Amino acid sequence: MSNNDNRNFVEQIADIDTDFPKWYTDVVIKTQLVDYGPVKGTMVIRPYGYAIWENIQRELDKRFKATGHKNAYFPLLIPMSFFTKEAEHVEGFAPEVAVVTHAGGEELAEPLAIRPTSETIIGNMYSKWIQSYRDLPVLINQWANVMRWEKTTRPFLRTSEFLWQEGHTAHATEEEAMDETMKMLGVYKEFAENCLAIPVICGRKTEKEKFAGAVATFGMEAMMKDGKSLQAGTSHYLGQNFAKAFEIKFLDKDGVQKYAYTSSWGVSTRLIGALIMAHGDRRGLVIPPVVAPVQAVIVPIAAKKGGVMEACRKIKCDLESAGVRVELDDSDSSPGWKFNEWEMRGVPVRIEVGPRDLEAGKVVLFRRDTCAKDAYSLENIVAEVGALLNSVQKDMLECARARRDARIVDADTLEELLKGVDAGKFVRAGWCGCRECEDAVKAQTAATARVFAEENTHEKCVVCGKPAKHSVFFARAY
Amino acid sequence: MSNNDNRNFVEQIADIDTDFPKWYTDVVIKTQLVDYGPVKGTMVIRPYGYAIWENIQRELDKRFKATGHKNAYFPLLIPMSFFTKEAEHVEGFAPEVAVVTHAGGEELAEPLAIRPTSETIIGNMYSKWIQSYRDLPVLINQWANVMRWEKTTRPFLRTSEFLWQEGHTAHATEEEAMDETMKMLGVYKEFAENCLAIPVICGRKTEKEKFAGAVATFGMEAMMKDGKSLQAGTSHYLGQNFAKAFEIKFLDKDGVQKYAYTSSWGVSTRLIGALIMAHGDRRGLVIPPVVAPVQAVIVPIAAKKGGVMEACRKIKCDLESAGVRVELDDSDSSPGWKFNEWEMRGVPVRIEVGPRDLEAGKVVLFRRDTCAKDAYSLENIVAEVGALLNSVQKDMLECARARRDARIVDADTLEELLKGVDAGKFVRAGWCGCRECEDAVKAQTAATARVFAEENTHEKCVVCGKPAKHSVFFARAY
Repeated sequence: MSNNDNRNFVEQIADIDTDFPKWYTDVVIKTQLVDYGPVKGTMVIRPYGYAIWENIQRELDKRFKATGHKNAYFPLLIPMSFFTKEAEHVEGFAPEVAVVTHAGGEELAEPLAIRPTSETIIGNMYSKWIQSYRDLPVLINQWANVMRWEKTTRPFLRTSEFLWQEGHTAHATEEEAMDETMKMLGVYKEFAENCLAIPVICGRKTEKEKFAGAVATFGMEAMMKDGKSLQAGTSHYLGQNFAKAFEIKFLDKDGVQKYAYTSSWGVSTRLIGALIMAHGDRRGLVIPPVVAPVQAVIVPIAAKKGGVMEACRKIKCDLESAGVRVELDDSDSSPGWKFNEWEMRGVPVRIEVGPRDLEAGKVVLFRRDTCAKDAYSLENIVAEVGALLNSVQKDMLECARARRDARIVDADTLEELLKGVDAGKFVRAGWCGCRECEDAVKAQTAATARVFAEENTHEKCVVCGKPAKHSVFFARAY
Repeated sequence: MSNNDNRNFVEQIADIDTDFPKWYTDVVIKTQLVDYGPVKGTMVIRPYGYAIWENIQRELDKRFKATGHKNAYFPLLIPMSFFTKEAEHVEGFAPEVAVVTHAGGEELAEPLAIRPTSETIIGNMYSKWIQSYRDLPVLINQWANVMRWEKTTRPFLRTSEFLWQEGHTAHATEEEAMDETMKMLGVYKEFAENCLAIPVICGRKTEKEKFAGAVATFGMEAMMKDGKSLQAGTSHYLGQNFAKAFEIKFLDKDGVQKYAYTSSWGVSTRLIGALIMAHGDRRGLVIPPVVAPVQAVIVPIAAKKGGVMEACRKIKCDLESAGVRVELDDSDSSPGWKFNEWEMRGVPVRIEVGPRDLEAGKVVLFRRDTCAKDAYSLENIVAEVGALLNSVQKDMLECARARRDARIVDADTLEELLKGVDAGKFVRAGWCGCRECEDAVKAQTAATARVFAEENTHEKCVVCGKPAKHSVFFARAY
């Protein structure tokens, strides 16, 4: 019976090795993380998916507050005229904007954009709030929905509307604003690695790939299981660009009126797509414990045998008291069916409670990441589960890191670069710094410049052979 | 010096007794709870205001989860055609809707509404998700922004965009859906009283005042300091209205296809307006400790004297460890200026630390609600502050309750009713149940039917003199 269940179940998901895109769609839909909304390109984040987002929010929000930021909320609708105040910004965002033209039964005097990002409206408010150096720095974050009209969409990865946080800060000096930009990139990296168990490569982006209106954009890139890169977060140093466009000026200590320096930084529900594609396997999701909606599931074996359900309930109660997010699956399905279901849903630890093990004072713990299982003493079960969750969290990161590091190669020629990305690798190569060579890489390999490596370890540009200004990570990307 | 400060400061706020509306606007702007957005009718919720909302969210979310609800997120944009599926609903909401007609540089085939509330789009999804009685109940809540285009707006009370939560549940039976509706009204009442310290009157609304599309709406009404009522939350029993409009059907245990019964319930950032107007006084805000962004502020007196700042820092550290949200005001302003500032901002407890008190092993605690102050032993300061915060929370509710109860009167005639509401009272009066009499009360007194009293204690309708079907609380309302 449980073998049949097993077979039927696994057949529901496309094979991860032969059809990764279909595997992704199958997994997000069948595990009820998400569903398609009635308007093309929109998604509904279902409770199981939203619970991951709540855990992400909790962890990030804690870190933002620990670094001195406060949350606020700015309006959804932005006058279209605001966008034209920063030349690069309007060019980058105007084509993707959704526009409100009518409201309250009347046509509006000025059309309003649904925010694709909030630098403009926040800049407008900061110009009112900031008068003196005493008002600086301003360190504000917003949790909000944003909208960017996209032609091709995929749940979590690219949808018309998505949820995110956007930090917006203003400072008296260039140095402070730059420090903030790098500090928040560091917060993202630490969060990605310690909470999502995703190793990331951080670095500066090229002019072509930077945020529209920024002086410099720094990104963090994560390798997915198909070898493609996913931009998992960005931090922008905006210089005085938005300060000049929105008149964010302050009277400095020296009595001189100056423009402020600003930064912005954000991550989104895209991170859920990142963790699915960084950790998932043929059985489905593998969710790191820190952000897993359910960290441990208890499955009774031969539930009708004396003592089994009582033991399950006691374990649940003890784990809950210890702060573990735990569920007891007491439904009518067979244990085999439950195993498959909870494996597909990526629950980090399964606790199997059967009469024979119980007699021996033991239960079986299964860990989702390695699919290993072993018997443990029932007496220490709370400590054992806690320790196992810690191991899963740590090992998932190390495993992902080893997998990624084995798939980073260097290239000296375009042919090598192409061979690398065809094999699902990140390719580090020299770049002269000119747009033509960057475009040539894309045209010939479908890979884009993700971020600059910290050090320049290449002598020549992979395209033109001129001296390399940067070593760049190239990859195909989501 | 501090006297001058004092005078200048208090003059900044309009007098609460003679100009309540101006007092409200002054307080919300000057304490930096909120600012006006660039688009007419929109607000920016500033960090101090948003922190109150975060505390409200935390307390409510805990209660929603404890009653079995999970959070999810549904799209902002709703096809206009969805609204026409429920006849009353479209009539109620279509006039207030903001409409997206263009996106991604093109005109849309169908205009899209920015959600004014989400029954329609959630009904559409539930019809996909619910097939069998096994899928029920569905208990989902959403934290989101919504938009209702309003002619006259005031921060927190009525703005085009506001933040709220909306619960949407589906059940197999009428009884279950009705139980849910009443249960969540009860959750709101308990929250309003124990967290916001606002006593509320709960009851059913008239047909005229009910939610567009509901079978029955139950509301909670709070008395503001000017005697007007503020609808602080609503819970709707929707019967099968939306289930029929959106085909939410399930195969019941008896093998018969049935329509589900649904409920919805919500509270919004309006609650911040409610707590301001329920508790504020001539000095400004008075925020109940449970939702106060800062629960205690430490003000050093003669900060340069030996030991004062050290003592302040130690108290701060000890209180933080005990989980108190505390700030130490070590700015250059005078103590008098600080007193006024933090009183205006409504911080529940102030800790004054001066050299003479310190020598005697004491500090002074000031409580914002009664403006009483007293010396306490420094040794037990953490316990003393904790106890004082509990007292403030409890006493604020009792004080508001006594104030409200003293302002509820009964009326047998329209003249008495008018006299009552003119004096800033809630007036309980009999009502025959007909729309004409309800309209007549409004036309002649500017008061509206808020909710039905639990029991009918009146014999005759206050307007027509026919037998009363209900005792109704009438009041002028926000």
